[in-house]
Order: sequence, then structure tokens, then C-alpha cells
Amino acid sequence: MANWQSLIREQLEKDREEAVALLQDWVKNPSVQGAEESIQTSIAKTLDAMGASVDLWVMEGEELLKHPYFVSPRQEFAGSPNVVGVWKGSGEGRSIILNGHVDVVPAGDSAQWSDDPFSGKVEDGKLYGRGATDMKGGNLSSLLAVSVLQKLGVKLKGDVIFQSVVEEESGGAGTLATILRGYKADAALIPEPTNMKIFPKQQGSMWFRLTVKGRSAHGGTRYEGVSAIEKSLAVVQAIGRLEKERNDRLDDPLYEKLPIPIPINIGVIEGGKWPSSVADLVKLEGRMGVAPGEQMEDAKAEMAAALKALAEVDPWFAEAPVELEWYGARWVPGAVAEDHPLMEILQRQFVQVTGDRAVVEASPWGTDGGLLTALADTPAIVVGPGVTQVAHYPNEYIVLDDVLRCAEIFALTLMEWCGVADTTN
Amino acid sequence: MANWQSLIREQLEKDREEAVALLQDWVKNPSVQGAEESIQTSIAKTLDAMGASVDLWVMEGEELLKHPYFVSPRQEFAGSPNVVGVWKGSGEGRSIILNGHVDVVPAGDSAQWSDDPFSGKVEDGKLYGRGATDMKGGNLSSLLAVSVLQKLGVKLKGDVIFQSVVEEESGGAGTLATILRGYKADAALIPEPTNMKIFPKQQGSMWFRLTVKGRSAHGGTRYEGVSAIEKSLAVVQAIGRLEKERNDRLDDPLYEKLPIPIPINIGVIEGGKWPSSVADLVKLEGRMGVAPGEQMEDAKAEMAAALKALAEVDPWFAEAPVELEWYGARWVPGAVAEDHPLMEILQRQFVQVTGDRAVVEASPWGTDGGLLTALADTPAIVVGPGVTQVAHYPNEYIVLDDVLRCAEIFALTLMEWCGVADTTN
Repeated sequence: MANWQSLIREQLEKDREEAVALLQDWVKNPSVQGAEESIQTSIAKTLDAMGASVDLWVMEGEELLKHPYFVSPRQEFAGSPNVVGVWKGSGEGRSIILNGHVDVVPAGDSAQWSDDPFSGKVEDGKLYGRGATDMKGGNLSSLLAVSVLQKLGVKLKGDVIFQSVVEEESGGAGTLATILRGYKADAALIPEPTNMKIFPKQQGSMWFRLTVKGRSAHGGTRYEGVSAIEKSLAVVQAIGRLEKERNDRLDDPLYEKLPIPIPINIGVIEGGKWPSSVADLVKLEGRMGVAPGEQMEDAKAEMAAALKALAEVDPWFAEAPVELEWYGARWVPGAVAEDHPLMEILQRQFVQVTGDRAVVEASPWGTDGGLLTALADTPAIVVGPGVTQVAHYPNEYIVLDDVLRCAEIFALTLMEWCGVADTTN
Repeated sequence: MANWQSLIREQLEKDREEAVALLQDWVKNPSVQGAEESIQTSIAKTLDAMGASVDLWVMEGEELLKHPYFVSPRQEFAGSPNVVGVWKGSGEGRSIILNGHVDVVPAGDSAQWSDDPFSGKVEDGKLYGRGATDMKGGNLSSLLAVSVLQKLGVKLKGDVIFQSVVEEESGGAGTLATILRGYKADAALIPEPTNMKIFPKQQGSMWFRLTVKGRSAHGGTRYEGVSAIEKSLAVVQAIGRLEKERNDRLDDPLYEKLPIPIPINIGVIEGGKWPSSVADLVKLEGRMGVAPGEQMEDAKAEMAAALKALAEVDPWFAEAPVELEWYGARWVPGAVAEDHPLMEILQRQFVQVTGDRAVVEASPWGTDGGLLTALADTPAIVVGPGVTQVAHYPNEYIVLDDVLRCAEIFALTLMEWCGVADTTN
């Protein structure tokens, strides 16, 4: 039997220059929200050239827009098509989805970048630019895994479904649309930047807005009013206690190393209009982590109960209850059993390729994997090259060796998961 | 000897219609900051017709703009002249300043007013409109006190100096300019809306801005960052402790009825940009009350020390000290001895006119009196018609009877304070 690992590594090295050029093309294409058409068209062409059945479409319609898991700041997706490429297997094998998002967050202040934020510049084995790590590098690993097997003449039994989706950064409407269009598989890999840690579980999250009320008065007689700023302190503290309760009861060993596995972050505070007036309104905006396996609705109910309980310690909150609103982005948590066969394969191939044991953890953030697991009966595992420390930051980059190493692990994993029908080697 | 009180009251009643018409003219004139020229010109004409030497000028110059007590959002006062009218006495008597501001705060949302905010409408003995209470009604009381004595042929020994100033609502640059122009007197009355309570002491105040720092991180790993919102809680609490300390040590009986005589109000909070990011900066804006007799610089030093002490309980504040900035408006505190002769006269005339004992308190807010006391050696007492509950609010009004009653008290007070040289009665 051929030493597939060597063959794959060798082939990937041969293809390296071409692969880097492709990633440069992708990174140079500023596919921020609403501007994904050009890169998606280009990816569709690449998939077509690789022999996939290509499906490029602009998502729309009531089923999507009214879906309980639909979250997006927009209702109209012209300029932001999804792309899916399918390579049918010979049959009998397990199918797999390779899912990745093509939308990138804005570059932010370009003055904080050493080069153009979309330079695609390669230096010291790193490729720079917005989206390099999050997550065009990982998408390339997936595509290389397929192409390297093709080049080596490996024909798989199970279907391979490559998904280049939009809207991940806004809560997953792109992946939701693929599910509503009928795409599902026996498992999914999502090469988000995990630094090649394997995340069978992903924390979900959802955004909330709290409105804390007070009663205005002149600052010189502030005791005649009720300060919404002071009341906000009590609210922030109550949320701190809720966070502690929710985390204390988690006993998943995957969380052992994390100080706060499912944080509740209050990221924005804003209230009051005049230094010498008592503030009558404060707005707090935050993000509540949701545990793998937890229902979003249960987490919402806990937040509502914690806010309601404020009235027991301070009658002001009975008179003027804190308003709670769930708005904006939301990511469904995801969980795959740690002994799922794909977990076993991935970990084994990781050792094979790197010589090290894989680190298995739970992700501190949500991915589209939660939707695949919850709605498409497709267990999703998140593992990929790149590090979150540079995602969403200036001078984002990815180490090219890591992209290739991930491709190598993925190629070996595909052979084992989907099964090999035939090879020409 | 004539019963001056009866004569004054009678004459004021005779002049009532004319007086109300004048106040209507004033209130209909929307003399918000920057738009005081028209009303000041009209007041100058009135003073001239009453035989005063009139001084109308637009304040300017380095001496003013660089003065340590100069506070204003602007440096240029075209369109906002000051007016002073002086009636020289026959000599030997004590002089008095009747100081009042002509600038009014903006009307705000006119939908919250029952009538036009500058209607001057009279209904059920009340005159409505922005500035009616704060403080055109009080200014009219001062002017009527002078005119009624003139009509009754009373010639005073001491000088009477009527000051119609701008910029009180922004910290007193108008009154500062009168001081720099050389105006001073043996005492001053300022008919701000005290509901005829007599305020020998006035709380000063000054605005501050705090910048609380954190360190950004993703909300899902918020423990990797430092939340400026959480750190702000500690800052707000520290300021609460400072407020308590400062108030606990006040033992002035004038403050007995006030829960917090010199409050520190935090009126504005704003920080963080994204629900799922850890906030790295929070801005707090507030107003610090300054006790009568306290030096502004001492109060500032206490605030700085309280913020510095945060580092002792939380090393974060040693690494990232809270920034403190004094900005915007400032009112100097004022204090006159409770047994000052003018206090004694005022209280006695109050009983004479109303049959009730006067309430003597310390004001919860600053006035231009602090500047007169601190810089012009002119003890200032604040007492006037109108109630602060309607000042700065929609449907501001003043009770016309109160304006006349104040005029009556002021007229009798002027006779006694300045001394009567001669009468034709």
C-alpha cells in the first residue's frame, strides 16, 4: 500500500506556489459584507475547474427571512451569493461538508496596518491581509485537501461538499441558506482559526441590549432623582453573578483550562446626557455565551430571571424593570461527542502528520457549526490553521506552512472518513 | 412717618399691568446663548428711561479670556452684550448690586410645551415661557424695586447698580466681565428662583471628565482583557465614598435638611464599541459640588487623591490610572455670614411683607454670587421669586404675585440698606 501521507505532502509541496497565489487572490479581494460577489464567482470557477457540480445563488425568500435561526442586519443579499461545490462519491461512503465563510470583517483603521489591509503580501512564510486567518487560509486547506487527492488519483466513496458561505460574521445566514437548500452530510469540518486545536464543542452566543431606567433631577439635588448609572452598577453586578452561576455548573473537562468557559460580556455602556443632570436612562449591550448542548431559549430565560430578581433586592427595579432585548448577531452552540468517529480519525491523523498529540478543547466562540448540528443533523467539528489573536486585528496574517499541514491532515481524514473507492497510484 | 410698605404695595399694584407687559416682552425675546443683543438693547433703553447711567458692552480681551475664573464654551461674545445701569446715590449710603442673568437655557423639545416656549402667555396669575422663572421674573422684581421708589420720590443715599448679564448658564463669564470692568458694591442681591427662600450660602460646582481604561479582548475570552466597564464600577463607587466623606464633615446647620448638601453627580457614561468585545475605554462626565467657603482647588485635589487611591485596592489602576480632566462649566461657591446686616434686613422685611418667617438655607446650586464674593469683595445673597422645579423644564412659568411681593421686599430693603436721603412723600 502506498504511503499516502508522503505522497500527499509531496504533492502539496509541488502545488505550494500555485496555492499561495490562489490565497493571495482571495485575500486581495476585499470580501466584506455585501461585497462577496467577485470572490464567490472566482471560487465557483475554481470549483468548476476541479470538476465539482457548482451551485452559486443569492439567498432570499420567506423561508429564510422568517426562519427562527435567521439573524442578519440585512434582508437583501444581492452582491453576496453563496457557493457550494459537490463532488459525488462512488457511493456507500460517508459524506462530508467542508464549510467556511468568505465574508471578512472590515479592515478598520488602515493606519494601524503596516501594509495595505488587503495586500496579500508574503513575508517570512506568512501571508498578510484581512481574512487571511479568518478564514480564507482555512478554506484553502479544505480546497487543497480535495485537489491533492484528485491529483493523486484518489476517488472517494462518500460525497464531498465544499461550501463557501457569506454572513458568518453576522450570525450564519449563509450557512442557514445552504441548509434550507437541502445540503447536509454525515459530518462537517469547519477550518476556522483554532491554531489546529480540535473543537468538538463550540460555545454559542447571542447579543442582548438592556435598558436601565432612572429618574432625572438636577445634579445639585441628585437625591431627588434616581441615577440610571448607579442602577446600572447593580445590573452589571447581577450579570456577573449570573455568569458565575452558569459557569460553576459546567463540568465538562473540555472547559477545565478556561477561567470562564461561557462568559457574559457587557461590551457597550451609554447613558445620561448632561454632567449636572441625573441620568434617566442607560443602555448596556453585551454578548451572552451559550454552552454546547444548551438551548438558546433556556439561556435567555436565565438572563430574564436574573434581571427580574433585581426587584427583590431593590424596589426601584420593581417600579422600573430593566428592559431586555435580544438583537443583532447570534451563533448557535455546537457539540459533537468526543468519541465521534471523525474525532478519532482527526486526532490520529494529527499525530501522524505533526508527531504531536492534538489539543482537544471547546471553542470560546460560535461558528456556523452550531447551525449544521442543530438544523441539518450534521455533526460539525471546528479545526483549522491560523490563530484568533490576529483575527479581526490589524496586520492579520496566516502561516503558510500551517495551511498546508492542515490540508495534509484533511486529505488523510477525507480518505478515511469518506472511504477510498479507487486510486490510480 | 409714611407707611412705606403700604405705599410701595399700592404703587406696585398700580404699575402691575405695565410690569406684566414688560415681563411678557422679555420672555417673548428668546435670549438663549448668543442671542441676547435684542433684549439687552431693550433693557438698556428701559434703564436709560429710568435715569440710570447705562453701560452696554460686548465683553472681550485677554484679561477676561485668560482669567482663572473665566469659563465659557466660547471666546467671542458678539451678539451677547452685558448691560449695567447705575443710579448714583446722594452719598454716604451703602451701595448695592442687583445682579441677574438674561441668558436662558434652550427651550428643548417644543412638543413638550403646551404653548410656544416663548409665548409669555398669562393665565391664572402665572406668566409662561422659557426664562420666566430663570430668571427674568426675578430681574423684574429688582427693576420694580427701583422704579417704585422713584415713583414714590424716594432718593437713596447709596448707589444702586442693576446688572443684566449674559453667560450665567455657562459659568458666569458675564458677571466676571462686570467685575473686571470695575463694578463692585457693599452687597449684592441675586433674585434667582429660590421660591423666596434666602440663600446666604451657595454651593459651587465644577464639571469633570474621567477616562477609565481597560484592555480589549474578544467577548468569548473576556478574561484575556480588562473591562473598562467593570473598572468604571469601582470608579463610581470610589466617587460615592468621596461624596460621603465630603458631606459627613459638613456641620453647617443650613445643611441640616439636605440629604447630600454637596453632591457629586455622575451624569454621563459612555464606553465600548461592540457587544462582543471587552470595552477598553469608558468616559464618565459629572459635576462636583463645592461647599461655600471651600476652595475649588482643594476640591479638585480631593477628587484627584480619591482616584489615585484606587491603585491601592486594584493594581490595574496603577498600570492604567484614571484620567481626570476639569472642563466645561464651573460656578464658584459663595458665602455670606448669616448675621450679615443685609441678611438681618431681608429677613425682617420678609416678615413685614409676608407675615411669615423667611426660610434661610444654602442653595444646592451655584450662581454668579460666588464670583462677586470671591473677586469683587461684594457679599452676595440669593433670593428671588420662582421655583427651580420649573426652571430648565417645559412649561416654565412664574407666579406674578410672587414677582411683585419680591419687588416689595427689595424696595424696603433698598431703603434700609442704602439709606434714604430724601423723599417727596
